[in-house]
Amino acid sequence: MKRNIYLRTIPIEEALSRAMAELDREALLGVERVDAARCAGRITAEPVMARYSSPTYHSAAMDGIAVRAADTFAAREGSPVRLRPDVDFVFVNTGHAMPPAFDAVVMIENVVMDGRIAAIETPVAPFAHVRRIGEDIVATEMILPCHRRISPYDVGALLSCGVYDVLVYEKVRMRVIPTGDEVMDFTARPEPGPGQVVESNSMLLCALAGEWGMDCLRLPPAPDDPDALARAMEEALSSDAHIVVTVAGSSAGSKDFTRSTIERVGRVLVHGVAAMPGKPSLLGVARGKLLVGAPGYPVSAVVCFERLLYPLACWLSRTEPRSRQTIAATLARSVPSRIGMVDFVRLAVGKVGARHVALPLSKGAGSISTMTKAQAVMQLPAEAEGMEAGALVTAELLVDAGELARTLVCVGSHDNTLDVLADMLMCRAPAMRLASSHVGSMGGLIALKNDAAMVAGAHLFDPVTQDYNFPFLAKYLSALPVTVVNLAIRRQGLIVAPGNPRGIRGVADLATGGVRYLNRQRGAGTRILFDHHLAQAGIDPQRISGYDREEHTHMAVAVNVRTGSADCGLGVHAAARALGLDFVPLARERYDLVIPTAYLDDPKIAAVLDVVRSDAFRARVAELGGYETDWSGRIMEPGMGLPGEPGTA
Amino acid sequence: MKRNIYLRTIPIEEALSRAMAELDREALLGVERVDAARCAGRITAEPVMARYSSPTYHSAAMDGIAVRAADTFAAREGSPVRLRPDVDFVFVNTGHAMPPAFDAVVMIENVVMDGRIAAIETPVAPFAHVRRIGEDIVATEMILPCHRRISPYDVGALLSCGVYDVLVYEKVRMRVIPTGDEVMDFTARPEPGPGQVVESNSMLLCALAGEWGMDCLRLPPAPDDPDALARAMEEALSSDAHIVVTVAGSSAGSKDFTRSTIERVGRVLVHGVAAMPGKPSLLGVARGKLLVGAPGYPVSAVVCFERLLYPLACWLSRTEPRSRQTIAATLARSVPSRIGMVDFVRLAVGKVGARHVALPLSKGAGSISTMTKAQAVMQLPAEAEGMEAGALVTAELLVDAGELARTLVCVGSHDNTLDVLADMLMCRAPAMRLASSHVGSMGGLIALKNDAAMVAGAHLFDPVTQDYNFPFLAKYLSALPVTVVNLAIRRQGLIVAPGNPRGIRGVADLATGGVRYLNRQRGAGTRILFDHHLAQAGIDPQRISGYDREEHTHMAVAVNVRTGSADCGLGVHAAARALGLDFVPLARERYDLVIPTAYLDDPKIAAVLDVVRSDAFRARVAELGGYETDWSGRIMEPGMGLPGEPGTA
Repeated sequence: MKRNIYLRTIPIEEALSRAMAELDREALLGVERVDAARCAGRITAEPVMARYSSPTYHSAAMDGIAVRAADTFAAREGSPVRLRPDVDFVFVNTGHAMPPAFDAVVMIENVVMDGRIAAIETPVAPFAHVRRIGEDIVATEMILPCHRRISPYDVGALLSCGVYDVLVYEKVRMRVIPTGDEVMDFTARPEPGPGQVVESNSMLLCALAGEWGMDCLRLPPAPDDPDALARAMEEALSSDAHIVVTVAGSSAGSKDFTRSTIERVGRVLVHGVAAMPGKPSLLGVARGKLLVGAPGYPVSAVVCFERLLYPLACWLSRTEPRSRQTIAATLARSVPSRIGMVDFVRLAVGKVGARHVALPLSKGAGSISTMTKAQAVMQLPAEAEGMEAGALVTAELLVDAGELARTLVCVGSHDNTLDVLADMLMCRAPAMRLASSHVGSMGGLIALKNDAAMVAGAHLFDPVTQDYNFPFLAKYLSALPVTVVNLAIRRQGLIVAPGNPRGIRGVADLATGGVRYLNRQRGAGTRILFDHHLAQAGIDPQRISGYDREEHTHMAVAVNVRTGSADCGLGVHAAARALGLDFVPLARERYDLVIPTAYLDDPKIAAVLDVVRSDAFRARVAELGGYETDWSGRIMEPGMGLPGEPGTA
Repeated sequence: MKRNIYLRTIPIEEALSRAMAELDREALLGVERVDAARCAGRITAEPVMARYSSPTYHSAAMDGIAVRAADTFAAREGSPVRLRPDVDFVFVNTGHAMPPAFDAVVMIENVVMDGRIAAIETPVAPFAHVRRIGEDIVATEMILPCHRRISPYDVGALLSCGVYDVLVYEKVRMRVIPTGDEVMDFTARPEPGPGQVVESNSMLLCALAGEWGMDCLRLPPAPDDPDALARAMEEALSSDAHIVVTVAGSSAGSKDFTRSTIERVGRVLVHGVAAMPGKPSLLGVARGKLLVGAPGYPVSAVVCFERLLYPLACWLSRTEPRSRQTIAATLARSVPSRIGMVDFVRLAVGKVGARHVALPLSKGAGSISTMTKAQAVMQLPAEAEGMEAGALVTAELLVDAGELARTLVCVGSHDNTLDVLADMLMCRAPAMRLASSHVGSMGGLIALKNDAAMVAGAHLFDPVTQDYNFPFLAKYLSALPVTVVNLAIRRQGLIVAPGNPRGIRGVADLATGGVRYLNRQRGAGTRILFDHHLAQAGIDPQRISGYDREEHTHMAVAVNVRTGSADCGLGVHAAARALGLDFVPLARERYDLVIPTAYLDDPKIAAVLDVVRSDAFRARVAELGGYETDWSGRIMEPGMGLPGEPGTA
């Protein structure tokens, strides 16, 4: 079995230099003459000179009368100068050419008409309220230098001085070839089964290319077959594309043919960069064009595009890559990092009190949803071993900076109603974004303690007091005044396959061998609830098969049951219902929002309370199934426990 | 003569509120279902849920072998576990579905093959290097909330969980109608004569609309005729546009018909906002659509678009306006401001030493070139009377923040070779932008004194010492160590009409009546030179007709002579030559760059010296005419004066 061997991974800067040294950009990227009216965003290939002055004539800068300034010098308040129509003055509007021999404008509000005679009480200086020839632009003057990205304003300047077309660099054109036997072409709108993947990276790259001003065309997927891939690559190289990208197959697996295919059609320049995600990126050259082997994991493909392909495309078109706005943010959790590798860490960022807080999201290169959830990304340099919680980091913003002030950081337990809350917050004006991180109820309380969140979701049950959350707050958050608001009462139970084929009726049935249980992570309220029920039933956790196998959300537990990779897990009714699974009720419990009292007046918190107390929220939560909303939005006090079971009053 | 009367100008916020109160956005802007692969930039009209999980199956996260984790528990270094092919392990590549019954992956680099047997020396945990079902996205989970601007990353997430189309708001569509008898349709590529203007604002607005994600269509210009304008407006209202914009005619002049036409077809909501530029903006409503009367001055039209039309378009599509990055900058000159009006001041911004310096550009609403030259804009609030030099202001960036560090602020005398320098600096890698402000030689020295520029251009002649610049530096900048580098030796002279119809041979001819002279502003080296020649000839300045009429650049003087609005002015040979004028030589002079010595090591200054010392620069300056470049780039010392006249050695 032949496997590729990586070249030594090299720093990104070195990878870029190698490609720049091998490509002849003069030969690769041509110039073209385009309509000045539609050239915004293009890059000038030569300096642009004004063909005409703007304005081309002395013109009135105000509505009023054109006069000879000298005629007005004697005017005084109470002793007006009287001017005769046509001879001494002419009415003009803003923009009109000054009539010959007249050299100033008196504003209409300073003119008193006495029949046809105009009376002026204030003298005007020569050229008062006159736009002079060439005041804006003088013919032959340089309007734009070479290598300038043309702005919308530039379009106005070009046309107004008679420049109707402009020599610019071609747009960088790229072709993207998805690869892999397992990928399904999304254009056929497939329904993926196990083992199948809807191909999405090609359009992700096309969308990125579009955003950064390139033309990008996606080609049909090529199978894991060296000849087919070589044919597809040759065909793309024969097109007018400047850059040909293959997606997936760039690593060193037995079916990764990108490297060998680039070797067949051209030359490999770089195989492997010192970056995570993005490591198995390939750069090559063939027929003077740039070949890029983008990794198959979506976040790796993004890094390959943004850190390699995009800077090279900018270099081709003689412009600097656009930079993202950066902000300083406090890291809410430690992040490990491998020495020798630059780490690109996705961050959920929001304002907590006066500072920006950054929550590192999953590092998985396969998780495109982290890019969807992230507001920023940070770079950990190659020499760093990681970054400690509390460190001030530089975060590159993926969203508008204005959005951060409207982003509410919520850390803690996961519940499906948070999706409803997030959606309803976005529908308000101004829209508010909920950046929620699911680290379990205890994790949420710790985040509040560290001032790393403004809200924590918690459903911690204390068997001794039969109360929720308050006993834990007293123990772990005694120094922080908090307000506890109920989000919903929910039903937890055992999630099982449709029809409950294992006949599970309670936790006792989980210890009877053969049932593959799937647990929640340590610190999760649901884990604590499960342990409580095991203890009540007198069952040793070690008798539960799968007790050590952990997932982080209700939905993740449910999907494992749905696909048969587990027989049972504890979770909320809504998760079972969403995936059409059966549900064995175990307990009702209270899911609360814990809010530092100091933040109660923050408009973001006000918005949350507003939503949670609305009828619309109650109605949407009811649709999820397994929730009671009678207490939603109500402020909780110690000892309240649960409301009475509905229908039992 | 009927003239419109302004409504009271109202604050921009109030204008926006009035329009929002009158428009029914639910009725105006519809929703549509679009291809998820091409929906980047659109705004979701409902929350989007995952149709499938991603991945849909447990899959290998590494290249290697799939195993049962339990089989490896006994593995130790030196005491490997031996696994049989197919029975105990299967080769897998990243992304492959895990074969049934296998639950972990051993990385290929940790596998030693002994024939067909795989030997493992390290145990692996269950689900090690396995991407679990739904690890990224779980079916039914919310991927995007409503009212979300879809990012390229979102496109990847949508496709990967089987979402092939998305309900989004329509793009906001606008139609732009230019107006005015004097405007020429640029599509005919006209050659404007005196009194004529090439219409450019419509495409400026279209380009802005495109940049901000709207669809914009320009209609042919309508003449200054109420019926024709009403017809054009009615036609645009009958189209699928949500917003109809007319350009020019929104003020109160006798030919400003926009207001009365809006009153004919609908209702005026706002006439006049408390903003400069942008004051004569109109908002109205007809058939449930938004009507906008944009002012005819280009910068006013920009303000009307950016501060009124764009926020309303965002409100229509349920999204927040994008914000520009702001920076703190030190104001280099005072700016006056009218109380009661918000002032939008364009700024040239660059880094001088460690701080950002902002030079206010001309306030003229007619000067689109100020938008082309500006790197930022600042808002002076309505209650401000102005802002003093040295104040720290908040500047909204019009360019990429990265560009500021590559922008060199050059203040002082104007010379045509600065265009050549600016162009050649942009052609370097990395590109460097020259932000030059023409305030005369003395103004440049003052800017250096205030640390408001890194370079000043000066050509100050001292008759006593017959030397350039150094006597003035000794007098005004004695505390600042500077290095003086020659840019070029240039020829100054009297610029006259072709054929020199007035027969001007020297300054003596200017005092002989009838010759209309055009002067340069106080503090300009050219003004000082002119005064020196008058003094030498014993002529009283008051005998020169036009001595009080000032322009700020050589080119502005030349264009006035070109169009006959002056007979003569003093300026450089290059300006006369550029406009095909005749030139009566008066003096050779030295134009130097004065650079604080502390900045000599700055890479921007290094780039300037590099360019100025290049043969390419000398060649391009020679093409301008009237320059000698023998000393270009040479460091000047006191007493050097001028080099010998070429050809006289």
